[in-house]
Amino acid sequence: MSLVYDERLDGALPRPDKAQLLQRLRAELPEHCLLHDREDLKPYECDGLAAYRTTPLLVVLPETVEQVQATLRLCHELQVPLVARGAGTGLSGGALPLEQGVLLVMARFNRILEVDPDGRRARVQPGVRNLAISQAAAPHDLYYAPDPSSQIACSIGGNVAENAGGVHCLKYGLTVHNVLAVEIVTLEGERLTLGGAALDSPGFDLLALFTGSEGLLGVVVEVTVKLLPKPPCARVVMASFADIERAGAAVADIIAAGIIPGGLEMMDNLTLRAAEDFIHAGYPVDAAAILLCELDGVEADVAADIERVSALLATAGATEIRLARDEAERQKFWAGRKNAFPAVGRLSPDYYCMDGTIPRRALPEVLRGIEALSAEYGLAVGNVFHAGDGNLHPLILFDANRPGELEQAEALGGRILDLCVAVGGTITGEHGVGREKINAMCTQFQSGELTFFHAVKAAFDAPGLLNPGKNVPTLHRCAEFGGLHVHRGQLPHPELERF
Amino acid sequence: MSLVYDERLDGALPRPDKAQLLQRLRAELPEHCLLHDREDLKPYECDGLAAYRTTPLLVVLPETVEQVQATLRLCHELQVPLVARGAGTGLSGGALPLEQGVLLVMARFNRILEVDPDGRRARVQPGVRNLAISQAAAPHDLYYAPDPSSQIACSIGGNVAENAGGVHCLKYGLTVHNVLAVEIVTLEGERLTLGGAALDSPGFDLLALFTGSEGLLGVVVEVTVKLLPKPPCARVVMASFADIERAGAAVADIIAAGIIPGGLEMMDNLTLRAAEDFIHAGYPVDAAAILLCELDGVEADVAADIERVSALLATAGATEIRLARDEAERQKFWAGRKNAFPAVGRLSPDYYCMDGTIPRRALPEVLRGIEALSAEYGLAVGNVFHAGDGNLHPLILFDANRPGELEQAEALGGRILDLCVAVGGTITGEHGVGREKINAMCTQFQSGELTFFHAVKAAFDAPGLLNPGKNVPTLHRCAEFGGLHVHRGQLPHPELERF
Repeated sequence: MSLVYDERLDGALPRPDKAQLLQRLRAELPEHCLLHDREDLKPYECDGLAAYRTTPLLVVLPETVEQVQATLRLCHELQVPLVARGAGTGLSGGALPLEQGVLLVMARFNRILEVDPDGRRARVQPGVRNLAISQAAAPHDLYYAPDPSSQIACSIGGNVAENAGGVHCLKYGLTVHNVLAVEIVTLEGERLTLGGAALDSPGFDLLALFTGSEGLLGVVVEVTVKLLPKPPCARVVMASFADIERAGAAVADIIAAGIIPGGLEMMDNLTLRAAEDFIHAGYPVDAAAILLCELDGVEADVAADIERVSALLATAGATEIRLARDEAERQKFWAGRKNAFPAVGRLSPDYYCMDGTIPRRALPEVLRGIEALSAEYGLAVGNVFHAGDGNLHPLILFDANRPGELEQAEALGGRILDLCVAVGGTITGEHGVGREKINAMCTQFQSGELTFFHAVKAAFDAPGLLNPGKNVPTLHRCAEFGGLHVHRGQLPHPELERF
Repeated sequence: MSLVYDERLDGALPRPDKAQLLQRLRAELPEHCLLHDREDLKPYECDGLAAYRTTPLLVVLPETVEQVQATLRLCHELQVPLVARGAGTGLSGGALPLEQGVLLVMARFNRILEVDPDGRRARVQPGVRNLAISQAAAPHDLYYAPDPSSQIACSIGGNVAENAGGVHCLKYGLTVHNVLAVEIVTLEGERLTLGGAALDSPGFDLLALFTGSEGLLGVVVEVTVKLLPKPPCARVVMASFADIERAGAAVADIIAAGIIPGGLEMMDNLTLRAAEDFIHAGYPVDAAAILLCELDGVEADVAADIERVSALLATAGATEIRLARDEAERQKFWAGRKNAFPAVGRLSPDYYCMDGTIPRRALPEVLRGIEALSAEYGLAVGNVFHAGDGNLHPLILFDANRPGELEQAEALGGRILDLCVAVGGTITGEHGVGREKINAMCTQFQSGELTFFHAVKAAFDAPGLLNPGKNVPTLHRCAEFGGLHVHRGQLPHPELERF
């Protein structure tokens, strides 16, 4: 599959009149909420996928829900495309601005509105950082479970938009499993609450539909999250392997044995060496791969699970099995993993982080496939996985200053995703589709599913103004990249052609 | 709120030509798949909410997915409304047939297609009974977690349609949290797979949208469920209270202490006496209320939790605390709870089972309110709750042969739901909206949310042929029952008036 983006396949977007738009915005928002000079706009030209950069037409930094409503109403009226963004840490270009669109930055919505220990929930504004929620809940021995590696910086609103995961989502679920309600503003500027305090909500599950919709259906202005009691005990086992495929097989063995680790991560030699150089986590630098397996719960439970996991690891051929001796060492083991991306970033001028999911049993096969592709393209690939979930993050090392190497990296990335789909997996685990995977969606989905995606999009945003060109490909794009049946040159569902 | 149904508020439905429809169906399905004589149709006139009865126009009992596709295509072409049904155990009239519509009965889709212990999942046809999945998985020490009280009889397809819960959903989640993928047939007869083996699926989360959509978006023809490892140990504590409000407060205390019981159920005196007479579970018949609290996990963990729970129950004022001494007694304690509805059915010619959800802290207040309403209407109310979830099942006792008593029961039920909404709860916990709560939806939701419900419905079923009159009220209905802003006699969104 191709990951190279051609914007003409998104159809013609409106070309707004910047002066008129600014004038109208000034009537609704104070001057300090509006950025329009080229140099003020520059810092907003990309998110965490820095290979793609576009300067937005305007940046709006609202401070109140009413200002968000006014901005959306205006964009709707004047037919101006709008991209909403949280902290901009996303890795799939989901918050990449549009040259002819407004970038709505929710950074100033940074207040924790309520921590309710009895109801075990917190009500927060979307710009609140993921980790700040757990910090606010800590005095009650509660925490918010999903923990993307970017949790120091990423915002909960962006987590909702991308349905973010993390090393603990194997046991505790993704964002969608940990959010009770969101308040949104629709394209028409209407305020709506999706979900609620109850376990189930009558009618259609719009909360789940909205979570992970990547800004295509509305803008989040408030989030109510579940808080979980902190496990009284958490310990981590590190196992070394002389062979990465054996490490992959051990992961499947642990899960098949009925153990649900708090986290189960794998790093290959390239990645663990990079992390060791950077963080000094105490990793065995001569291992072909390591597994980090965290067990949490009450003490006795954890002790029993550690024994079972250690036995399984030994049978699977681990050359060394080490239990973190204390909390400090446990934190160190995890710090290495959580900093694996920047660590690899020190090895190479550029790297490209992929994100695919495969059935766990296919791990050894896919690892062999990635190794062969790496050799074929002559680009090194580091492998760091949420192994328990089958969620892979191959890191492709390249140098963007060498002509053609970015394109080679993209081509190699596309081939890796093809491999994931071929073994029954998907093109994204937790980073989202965004701009990056928009062509790959055409490989993943058939025209039937895409038609429903478009119809759902039309239900919330008929003119297609919210984050166009992300997450859901147009029919034109899929006619180009497969997945769509084009009959005698006619696209199906002509009423949805604008998408 | 009113629970009395007036079908005129659903707008005019098509009136199909039965002879033509039958002739066309005979070209697609063998004769033994079609029922059309009045006496053959009779057994299908209601689901578990037997107060509502309608004889369907025709019953179709397909045996293959191709036959389901043909039936839907034909209904679409001839504009015939269609209601799909599983085992028909639902309690909200979600599978109530239409006099002028086809009833599609999925009973013959009763095969377990695959149990995959490595991937911890099972692929089954929609007519498979809930409990049969756990039985098939038992040799691998795995089970399917959601366990509605009707699990001996109810089908997994119906569980998906209603997003069914059960006594264990506090810890293990609802159906939506335990389903990995569904294969559906759309109104146009197209086969689609929603979800997949991966933790997260790119694009919009149509799987979650479909789960709990009550047959309004398509027909399930295959379900892939998660299987969980059986907890090695499960024990149940029974606590007696002299006062139902104290029992309610104890529930909130247990949850606030950070304990997540496998199940946490409450029964009041009326209900526990009825259950004791019926099942001889060993309940203390003089208690005002009992709590059943199950702890599961590894042995040491369970033992520690039992101590903590027992201490909390004692502090909350429990008059007696008993630990089921063995597995047989544990099963007996649960058998009483799971048979509470039929047990109450032995006390009174008729009963009406309500289903609302409230924040846990509001339990004592709502219990007082129900007591007062019971006195006001002169109808006894038994209370049996999934207390840990705040999911109430008040059972209103009445005699349908006494003129006006059904209407009084419905009126009382409506007042109880008003109370749930007033304290921040919802009008259904796990039984669904169906026909029963269709007016109550107008109280629960504002016009903004309803507009999106209708737009989502239109995305899947533009002519409104799938299960009309259930789950999502028409704008006409909400103009009658509140929730909708009618401006100068005009409904908003005239393009959605057919819904």
